[in-house]
Amino acid sequence: MTSPAPVVLVFLDPAFPNGRLADASKPQLMATDQGAIRGDGVFESMLAVGGSVRKLQAHLDRLDSSALALDLENPGQDRWRKAIETGVAEHRMQHPAPSPADDELVVKLVVTRGVEGAGSPTCWVQVSPVGAAGRRQRETGIDVILLDRGHDSGVAERAPWLLMGAKTLSYAVNMAALRYAHKQGADDVIFTSSDGRVLEGPTSTVLLAHLETSDDGAGGNRTTRRLVTPRLDSGILPGTSQGALFNAARAAGWELGYGPLEPQDLLEADAVWLISSIRLLAPVNHIDGKEIGTPAIQKQLTAELNELFAGIQ
Amino acid sequence: MTSPAPVVLVFLDPAFPNGRLADASKPQLMATDQGAIRGDGVFESMLAVGGSVRKLQAHLDRLDSSALALDLENPGQDRWRKAIETGVAEHRMQHPAPSPADDELVVKLVVTRGVEGAGSPTCWVQVSPVGAAGRRQRETGIDVILLDRGHDSGVAERAPWLLMGAKTLSYAVNMAALRYAHKQGADDVIFTSSDGRVLEGPTSTVLLAHLETSDDGAGGNRTTRRLVTPRLDSGILPGTSQGALFNAARAAGWELGYGPLEPQDLLEADAVWLISSIRLLAPVNHIDGKEIGTPAIQKQLTAELNELFAGIQ
Repeated sequence: MTSPAPVVLVFLDPAFPNGRLADASKPQLMATDQGAIRGDGVFESMLAVGGSVRKLQAHLDRLDSSALALDLENPGQDRWRKAIETGVAEHRMQHPAPSPADDELVVKLVVTRGVEGAGSPTCWVQVSPVGAAGRRQRETGIDVILLDRGHDSGVAERAPWLLMGAKTLSYAVNMAALRYAHKQGADDVIFTSSDGRVLEGPTSTVLLAHLETSDDGAGGNRTTRRLVTPRLDSGILPGTSQGALFNAARAAGWELGYGPLEPQDLLEADAVWLISSIRLLAPVNHIDGKEIGTPAIQKQLTAELNELFAGIQ
Repeated sequence: MTSPAPVVLVFLDPAFPNGRLADASKPQLMATDQGAIRGDGVFESMLAVGGSVRKLQAHLDRLDSSALALDLENPGQDRWRKAIETGVAEHRMQHPAPSPADDELVVKLVVTRGVEGAGSPTCWVQVSPVGAAGRRQRETGIDVILLDRGHDSGVAERAPWLLMGAKTLSYAVNMAALRYAHKQGADDVIFTSSDGRVLEGPTSTVLLAHLETSDDGAGGNRTTRRLVTPRLDSGILPGTSQGALFNAARAAGWELGYGPLEPQDLLEADAVWLISSIRLLAPVNHIDGKEIGTPAIQKQLTAELNELFAGIQ
């Protein structure tokens, strides 16, 4: 039992153009809200650094597309932007970061289907500090196990009702997979499909890299860096961090690739990461107990990608 | 937009041995509750007729087993029983049924993982009237479409982290499948597995029946009634109504069977139903537009099973 982290809540409310601040220490949701009793809603989790939300547009766009997949009414992006500004400013005022390096906040956006029969969604912004575990894992790396996600990699295209590309509130399985991993002494999970493809983490996207040195034809050596992620049409959530990092890496001369990937590809990579908006790049040290890549190359590539990622707005 | 149905809420609270009544017209849940933001919890929906909850023990047992699958702490059944009594009595006092035939209430039990870091679950009982649509469909029957559930029928055994046999709050896919059916002009869904097996409805269990008349060897006829449901180990939720009805049907001389079932078995049955705790037996008139069974036999078997089911406590 730990004391709860300081949380700021801002509800989207037509009567409050900049959002309605609400006391997070008191109940604010109806027990009959369909988000609460059916996981019927969508969300985004974003990182604010020094008061500025990273990849805001990509997150707002993905929230729109998740809401569309669930036939959920979603307020306009302008209303979200104002409520986010209100929440981040309020949190930084109420709970100033002890140092500029600690000025990181999780900004969560939630849209639920609201109370049954009321016909309007419930929408809010939740601002809270970044947990210590996530920040630590950026440095130490993580141990991962592979777990079967139960479906094949073609399901998203043939069965839209399974909401594969939407970030819904129905995260019980993602949480159960993480608990299962923790019981095995691991930190995280990479899901695989029933047809043997690498999919994603419960709350992250999978990346791998290869470093190849070849003759440059002029007596010297040429180093190629190649960054690969699973195919986006394999029933996974399109990662906003993966998307932004791929753009930055391309501009820096990296080659890019999109699966299909199999577990063997992870074991043969020079480095593997789970990337997400809050924890950022978490280097994968072991998968099912097997060491991944070589520590020196993993360290070098992680440093390079972190630098590229730090430049993303 | 419809006016909300009258709801009574009773929270499980150690300070209130019979449960704590709470105003359902006001927010009662923390926005940071992991049930609300991750669908991380479990539930049951039960029917109270004339103030008495049907199959209470089976529901309490399934709630325990769902909670166990999610590593959720669940208060003892005695505490649930008292809170249920409080909620049902309060609803019947505040909102008496217009006639004894209308004295039906939905009693929902919810357990969430609570607020992150708080270390204790949030548990409540919600009592509300039975919706008109469900009651009507018991009489009129329903049209159903088959939808791919994405996984094969063996997944529950090999991947416990997918929580296949637990009734979790993560119902976004179930709700999306129902919306998909409604857009096609259908009332409900029967999920199939990727290996072609009949699984379950989004909120119900599948039943089919065969009526066979054979020579009794003494110059007369002998009628055999056979009731079949999908295999319970095929990644479906064990139905409390199916379980109770099977016991009653066995006692009344029906033969019982457990799949595997394929869609063709549904099309060749004399009658098909979706059975659940609130809507009870809903006769299936069409599946993917094809008429099921013959109306006269369906009507006769539905009447027989309804009579058996009415005797269940």
